[in-house]
Amino acid sequence: MAGSDKIENLIKLIARLPGLGKRSAQRIALHLIKNKTSLLPALIQSLEDVKENVKICPVCGNFDTIAPCAICQSPKRDKSIICVISDVSSLWAMERTGYYNGMYHITGGILSSVEGIEPENLNIHPLINRASDDEVKEVIIALPATVDGKITEHYIAEKLSECDVKISELAQGVPVGGELDYLDDGTIAEALKSRKSI
Amino acid sequence: MAGSDKIENLIKLIARLPGLGKRSAQRIALHLIKNKTSLLPALIQSLEDVKENVKICPVCGNFDTIAPCAICQSPKRDKSIICVISDVSSLWAMERTGYYNGMYHITGGILSSVEGIEPENLNIHPLINRASDDEVKEVIIALPATVDGKITEHYIAEKLSECDVKISELAQGVPVGGELDYLDDGTIAEALKSRKSI
Repeated sequence: MAGSDKIENLIKLIARLPGLGKRSAQRIALHLIKNKTSLLPALIQSLEDVKENVKICPVCGNFDTIAPCAICQSPKRDKSIICVISDVSSLWAMERTGYYNGMYHITGGILSSVEGIEPENLNIHPLINRASDDEVKEVIIALPATVDGKITEHYIAEKLSECDVKISELAQGVPVGGELDYLDDGTIAEALKSRKSI
Repeated sequence: MAGSDKIENLIKLIARLPGLGKRSAQRIALHLIKNKTSLLPALIQSLEDVKENVKICPVCGNFDTIAPCAICQSPKRDKSIICVISDVSSLWAMERTGYYNGMYHITGGILSSVEGIEPENLNIHPLINRASDDEVKEVIIALPATVDGKITEHYIAEKLSECDVKISELAQGVPVGGELDYLDDGTIAEALKSRKSI
């Protein structure tokens, strides 16, 4: 349908990327063919670079070209706080805020009875080791605010109770700029429950 | 922000693809890193294949690994009809219908006074040569149904008037499955003007 097998194959691969369907994959493939001498070689080079150089940080689970990752190696980061997140995308989201200056620990997912994800499938045990270090004073658990996320949070909190650290979670409430009318009932109830005097 | 320069560079390149922004590029880059041993090498190989092998058909302007393209070379296609389209994506859309069995001619765009696109910037002159062939009986102009598209259509139709061919355009009207309520006024007016007895 799309001319040649090679183009068809490229479209199929692009369509496997998250958020893309067949039509958007076709549009992207055409754009790449039209920019065969500029964008396409640069993209191939960049993908090669990432394939050859990016590794998983043995300490926190972040992706970086150096191991341990730049955050784990940085002398400017506060080594007394570890923020537990499920995924590298959460790490990027935290870093975008520019507000957090501690360390990270990526679990690689959350517990799920439906998907059969057990504690040993996640990167949790090394966290207990890290938190046992005298230098670590606080662990912030910032997993998804879903039922499975909360179950994972409680599991981790229980495991951490042996260590001498403060355990905290992110505050729940009305998002900044959030109109009450557009918020779900659970969020409003949670915000009401955790209301603070002004 | 996204860990390493190499990952940041990949995200920037992906964000330059049509329909993708920074967030979707981050999600795609992460997905590729997570699938470093399966999807990523396959994608690099496929992009290399396309870069090395795909060329522009010297007859119709289609993209293919052979030149002339598979459609121009096919003995099963009707050589007496040429469908004029602006882009390879239109060719793919026509082929998807499975209804058209003639040849194609890709103009590579439409005339535009705003963007300064003149007839000599488009692949129009070779069309006149092709249409002058005795074998060609009809030219269907299937350019975008916009003002610039219509201007280009009239320009091409005028140029083709020297050749001994029937010139036609796609019918305009209500799309299949189209609810009148959701259609723009221009389309309804056009469908009314071209109404047919049943």
